[in-house]
Parts: sequence; structure tokens; C-alpha cells
Amino acid sequence: MINTDICIIGAGPVGLFAVFETGLLKMRCHLIDALPQIGGQLSEIYPHKPIYDIPGYPTIKAQELIDNQMEQIAPFHPTFTLGERVEKLEKLEDGSFILTSNEGTVIACKVVVIAGGLGSFEPRKPAVIGLEDFEGKGVSYMIKNPEAYRDQRVVLAGGGDSALDWTIFLADIAKEVTLIHRSDSFRGAPDSAEKVFNLASQGKIRLLLQCNLNSVHGNGNINKVGVLDKSKIETFIEADSLIPLFGLSPKLGPIADWGLSIDKSAIEVDTFDFSTNVEGIFAIGDINTYPGKLKLILCGYHEAALMAQSAFKYVFPDQKLSFKYTTVNGINEF
Amino acid sequence: MINTDICIIGAGPVGLFAVFETGLLKMRCHLIDALPQIGGQLSEIYPHKPIYDIPGYPTIKAQELIDNQMEQIAPFHPTFTLGERVEKLEKLEDGSFILTSNEGTVIACKVVVIAGGLGSFEPRKPAVIGLEDFEGKGVSYMIKNPEAYRDQRVVLAGGGDSALDWTIFLADIAKEVTLIHRSDSFRGAPDSAEKVFNLASQGKIRLLLQCNLNSVHGNGNINKVGVLDKSKIETFIEADSLIPLFGLSPKLGPIADWGLSIDKSAIEVDTFDFSTNVEGIFAIGDINTYPGKLKLILCGYHEAALMAQSAFKYVFPDQKLSFKYTTVNGINEF
Repeated sequence: MINTDICIIGAGPVGLFAVFETGLLKMRCHLIDALPQIGGQLSEIYPHKPIYDIPGYPTIKAQELIDNQMEQIAPFHPTFTLGERVEKLEKLEDGSFILTSNEGTVIACKVVVIAGGLGSFEPRKPAVIGLEDFEGKGVSYMIKNPEAYRDQRVVLAGGGDSALDWTIFLADIAKEVTLIHRSDSFRGAPDSAEKVFNLASQGKIRLLLQCNLNSVHGNGNINKVGVLDKSKIETFIEADSLIPLFGLSPKLGPIADWGLSIDKSAIEVDTFDFSTNVEGIFAIGDINTYPGKLKLILCGYHEAALMAQSAFKYVFPDQKLSFKYTTVNGINEF
Repeated sequence: MINTDICIIGAGPVGLFAVFETGLLKMRCHLIDALPQIGGQLSEIYPHKPIYDIPGYPTIKAQELIDNQMEQIAPFHPTFTLGERVEKLEKLEDGSFILTSNEGTVIACKVVVIAGGLGSFEPRKPAVIGLEDFEGKGVSYMIKNPEAYRDQRVVLAGGGDSALDWTIFLADIAKEVTLIHRSDSFRGAPDSAEKVFNLASQGKIRLLLQCNLNSVHGNGNINKVGVLDKSKIETFIEADSLIPLFGLSPKLGPIADWGLSIDKSAIEVDTFDFSTNVEGIFAIGDINTYPGKLKLILCGYHEAALMAQSAFKYVFPDQKLSFKYTTVNGINEF
């Protein structure tokens, strides 16, 4: 059993910053995340994308932000359980908690901080013949390393920002890029859509509009993709990779069953300290909701700071909290 | 007359980030600050000090944070009036505002955002004979450029963190450092106090405890300082510089007369959008107060983001606001 002061569910940027803010107050954290690596969405979905709205960073790549945050919390020695999902939450009579993961890891803590982002999210999979058979054999739903597509014949499908952005990006890297979209206009940014139309008219990509992905074929690995046009005629495109980008479907998962007050898949919190309706459980970052809420990383940072002040009372009920500026005293390792 | 969408009072880190968040929504900003340079307290009081609690920066010097934020808001071309204090605020019948500075600058705007930090702050000056006569002639109340004290005979006075930190810092640079303090213990961080006691016992600084600064003397520039010990006997110390560090006394100034709801020198706001009780006036950063408020830069960033959503309604009353992530579209200059 892992014993800690605070168990943080979610190891994205907001969960990591909660380690810093609670660490300043001498509280120890253990983080658990269903993803196999630290960094949440930023590392899983868009590690190479630049972010522009982190205060003080005109631009920073998502993974770089996570790396910097890891360096920032290193003095507090957080511990991690990765690739496991918390299934069960039990509140003991003394007010403390026991959490159990899907793989049987047990964590005892005084405070639970849910920093679960969108929840444990899964890619939306279109209904395509043979699609799941080729997962990991040419079919993937997220791009982790764009270099893997260098000199490949890549087929993308979708009409949102991810489909547009990756089509533009891969046009420079891949041997051949095809984008399939069921409509003739795009939901994504007009500016990106314009770039995609330009690439198509220059012959740099193949753009199949009013078409639907229908089937995937191969021999071990994928080698071609079947596409239906609007008259339902199927044509085949040779392909080494297929990337359907139809968004992620966030799921709250077991969190929904813990007696928390939930509004539209988000946990309702008090802006005083981002506490939930259950004593000792806080929710910060994209997973919470309150009047005025914006799903921005920088808002989650603020929420982590205010949460830490109240969490202190559960971890050290007999101590008085004194607020100190790090500019004056720096960070004291422990 | 300067015409703008939003007039931001205060050009510290939170005021600067408000330019970013409102700029994303295509609003133009003009900033006015009583200090002669951009950056607020960070540039005025502790430009060389490291800050540890800016998310994503394990450490960053105060001035560097300001420089980075200026780069981040460059695409939005904010304009500035520096070294002037807003004296008068007038609300017109159409809901817009006219602000007038102490030097007669007039700014017309639809929204006022007060990001005034501690207010327009002034150093607390001890009652010392001749002190004000030598201001700028060896006497200063803040250290802007520590290098200016290289090889000088420096006298500091005070018992808080600033006095301790600068004593430690200048011990390496100055020819001779004396610290005068009326008590025999310090209010500042125990760790810093210990360092100062060690420097004194090693003979690297002169420490005069239970003593009071009494007089300043010189001929054009300062050349000596008179100190009273506990038996009220005055001794004189040769000095090129005197730095009394008795803190800053923040003053709300004319803002106190604008009909805003104020609690203990801070402006009361609604956490929904950090609006004040006066329609069209918002207050963000250290100058505001609400349940759970922490005076942290990172909290001011969050407040700026939520404020921008509501400010939009005053600037573009006929437009619908659509929330977009910069990660998707980047920053569009205007």
C-alpha cells in the first residue's frame, strides 16, 4: 500500500503544479494516471504542438512545458503510478481515503485531488470494415511522433483542426498524403482549411471531399484503404498508414460513481478552494466547473494554488498555515 | 486624447497578461502606470530576484518574466503611458469612461481594468535628521542596480527580508557593509538571519543591533551616518550610500474615490469575471480581494483570462464570443 498526504488523480500540467503548491506547504503527493506517461493530454495528444497562452512563454511546445514542470517539482519528490486507472474510492471513518486502481494498487491518503482533465479519454473510432484489426499495424488514432511517417503513404480522415493541422504538417514529411472528409467544408480553423485547399490545388496532397472511409486492407500490415464517394462507389488507395482523426471521447469513468456533484461531465466545485461536495476531495483543471470557468491550463494553476491552502487543514489539522512568497525564501527541498 | 477599447491601470505582470487575453479577443489596450518603466513591482523593487512559483519556470528572474511577457503581447501592439498616475475617472452616459492623469493625459475607453498591484506604493521613510536632503545623493530606498554599490561603503537599515537579503548580497560586492537594526532579532527569514549573523561573526559585515539610524551628513553627497545605541550615544560611520529598507507603504490613491467597494485597501470583485461593483470596471491581481484570494502572480493571470470574457461584451456588445484555444489557431496579430 502506498501512503501519502495527497493523492492526485491525473498527471497533466495542473496535477503536476498541484505537487508544487502543496509541496511548498510540506505536503507529499502521489500521482496516478491512466496514461502510460506523465503529461496528460499534452504528452499524449499534442506533445509537438506549440502552446501560446502559458503566461511568460510567448510559445512553448506542450512536452517542453511538462518537462519544465517536472523540473520545478523535483525538490518535492512526487511519486507516480502510471498506466493505471483509479476504480474505487473509499472514505474511512477518520476522514482519510483508500483508493484502488484497476490493477490492484492501493493508495492511502488524507486528501484526494482530481486533476483528471477531460477524464480518461478514448479516440472516437469510425465504423470502418477491418479498422480495429489493423490497430498498431498502420492504424493509429493519435500522432505521437510525426517522424514515424517520413516517406510513408499516409491517409488521414476527418474535418476538424487535428485533421487539417496534421495534413499540413505531414505534407512536408510523408511521401504521399491523402485527406478524406465526408463534407466539402471543414469544421476547423478557416485559415488551416485554406492551407489544405492550397496544398491540394498545388498537387502536394490528395483531397477527397464528400467521401467516406469504408474499409481497411492488408497483409499483416495495412496496404490499402477503401473509400466510398457520394455515389457509393468504392475506390482503393495504397497506404502505409491510416490516421482517423474524429476527436476524443472523454469519459469520467468510475469518478462518476463517487457521490460527487456533477454537471455535464464536470465536477462542481467552490471557487474558494475548488473543493467538491465531498469533504477532502478537490477537483482542479478541465475536469471541474464553476461560474465563469474556462478550460485553460493557466486557470488550473490558479485552482491548484487555492486548493493547497485548504488541503493543508486536512493534512496538518493542528498546524497554523503561514503564507510565504517563494521570491523571499526560495524552495526548500524535503 | 488616447482612444482605446480597454484602459489597464498598472503595467505589472498581471496587467501585461490582460493585454494578451483581451488581445486574443481582438480588443486593444492602453496601459498607464505611475512607475517610469513597465513591469510593476517586479522591475521596480526586485528585478534581479528569482521567482520560483511561475508555473513552468523552475526559476526565473523577475525582469526576465516581464521581458518574456512583453514578447508574448507584442502581436497585440499595446500602447503605454508611463510615469503618470490616473487621478480622475469619469463615466459617460453611454457607459464608457474618460480617465485623466496627473499630467493631463486623457484616455477614452469602454472598459477599465485596474491591475494596480499594491497600489502606487511609496517607501516608508524613517524619521532621520537630514535624510531627505540626501535623496539621490547617496540615500535610496530601493536597490535597482546592485552593481552601483561595488567597492562602496554601504549602510543598510532595517530588519525584514529586504534588509537581510541585500546585506547578504552586497557583502560580496561592496567595500564595506553595515546593517543597522533597532532590535536584536530579525523579522525576516530565519535562514537569512542566520547568514547575516555568520557574515558578522566572520567580520565580513558590521552588524549594529539595538541601534537606530539618527542622522545623515555630507557635503553635496553623503559621507557619514549617525547611529544611536541603546544608551542614546551617537557614533558616526563613514558611508558612500545609505539604504533604509523599512518596506513600502502601498496607497490606493485616487482609486479609493471612484465609488468602488473596498475592503482593507483591496477592491472587492466577483470571481465570475473579477468585475467590481461599478459596471465596466474590473480589478485583477494583488489589488483585488475575494473569498480564498491569494496574492500570487499566477492567480492574477487566471483573473485576467476570466475578465477578458466579460470585457468583450462591453467592447463588442453586438458580437457573439467564441472561445478558441491558441494551441489550435496560434496568435493572430492585429
